[in-house]
Amino acid sequence: MTETANPTACIVVIGNEILSGRTQDVNVKFLATRLAELGIALREVRIIPDIEATIIATINEMRAAFAHVFTTGGIGPTHDDITSPCIAAAFGVPWEPHPEAWANMERHYKPGEFNAARQRMATMPRGARLIENAISIAPGFSIGNVHVMAGVPRIMQAMFESLAPTLPGGKPIRARAVHGQRLLEGRLAAGLAAIQARYPTLDIGSYPYYRGDNNGVAIVAKGTDEAASAAAIAEAAALIESLGVSPILGEPPI
Amino acid sequence: MTETANPTACIVVIGNEILSGRTQDVNVKFLATRLAELGIALREVRIIPDIEATIIATINEMRAAFAHVFTTGGIGPTHDDITSPCIAAAFGVPWEPHPEAWANMERHYKPGEFNAARQRMATMPRGARLIENAISIAPGFSIGNVHVMAGVPRIMQAMFESLAPTLPGGKPIRARAVHGQRLLEGRLAAGLAAIQARYPTLDIGSYPYYRGDNNGVAIVAKGTDEAASAAAIAEAAALIESLGVSPILGEPPI
Repeated sequence: MTETANPTACIVVIGNEILSGRTQDVNVKFLATRLAELGIALREVRIIPDIEATIIATINEMRAAFAHVFTTGGIGPTHDDITSPCIAAAFGVPWEPHPEAWANMERHYKPGEFNAARQRMATMPRGARLIENAISIAPGFSIGNVHVMAGVPRIMQAMFESLAPTLPGGKPIRARAVHGQRLLEGRLAAGLAAIQARYPTLDIGSYPYYRGDNNGVAIVAKGTDEAASAAAIAEAAALIESLGVSPILGEPPI
Repeated sequence: MTETANPTACIVVIGNEILSGRTQDVNVKFLATRLAELGIALREVRIIPDIEATIIATINEMRAAFAHVFTTGGIGPTHDDITSPCIAAAFGVPWEPHPEAWANMERHYKPGEFNAARQRMATMPRGARLIENAISIAPGFSIGNVHVMAGVPRIMQAMFESLAPTLPGGKPIRARAVHGQRLLEGRLAAGLAAIQARYPTLDIGSYPYYRGDNNGVAIVAKGTDEAASAAAIAEAAALIESLGVSPILGEPPI
């Protein structure tokens, strides 16, 4: 992966349900795609369990290392939702009722239904900035460079879109691709390494695909310089053609 | 997540294509599920880019922290496949032709086709133990407690199944579940926390689901003590019933 002038980011997925195999994570792919569009370079993902010491240590390591930290999961009302108090502990600030979140939730629920469990969702690290969303009355929040979002994909996505306009980004990272059917990576490796060497600002990747009888290799060039990506993919197409395979622009159909 | 007497593990996913949003990872869910069946406790996942220093530092941190480290990705023949030499550097051993892998691959290819790119796939850290598989002639390998596998899911799965009988495991980690339709987490949180407190050896999780009009909450108990899981889920079912919702054993249909 090349150096970048864009801001960097990591994602911290907090949830036993991913580590147990119960749940297929889909939040990483969504966030990775949107961050690239915003010109934010996603550099690492960590998936960690609902263990207080692990969450605190991971958040403190990641917020020092990257410009943005996005967390998903663990902000609901049940006993296994411990992200919010852990973030307060990581920042060394009190975990206390957030006046605006508390007032919004109190107004939302019928009398008597804003119980202790739901009140936990309006309790946040001191200084938290709310991440509102159209789907859930319970907001996410940002503190410092850490953005704390729900784990349920449609709520997380709504929170991210509410947050996105406020994020300092960079140049969009765009991808171009070409693929060749019944092509083997071992045949194009040397030529592709030479193309990568000629375009040091791009990340050029080679990805075999297996779609029933439709096997082949896709070559993807990613970077902020679209002219360079286009030129590198044109060279990759010529390389594929030189091996007797017809290059097809774009990714292979799914 | 509770303490465990089972061996621990982490997964290191090596690949720019996951961090760019190009590819939806499915290897974590497969490995998480299989490791639970083998009685190996998956404690963390890291998704990192194809950067030499990052791979080396991550592997050395993880192999010291966990009983097993499983890597996926970066062992093909192209310039972006750098996992294998990085593992050698992490262990401080030479990266050199593996006699058995080399002989097998040389025999497999037609004369002249076992080129420099393919020879890289037969080049491994000194002392590597091969992970053969039925799908690809290029093997994975283990060194120490680090197991290095392909990123392509069907090849990774074949490699894992070839490796599985050799892994020292523990008691299988099994899950039981109950769910309630149109149930809200905020209503059952207090009762569920009390159940978790009565079953400290289990991980009890609460997961809202949204499947079109079929919304609700699933309660999952996981652990090595099946009698405890069954008892905890019976208590969760009684809790759901006490809230005026019919409990349904098992996970909600997808």
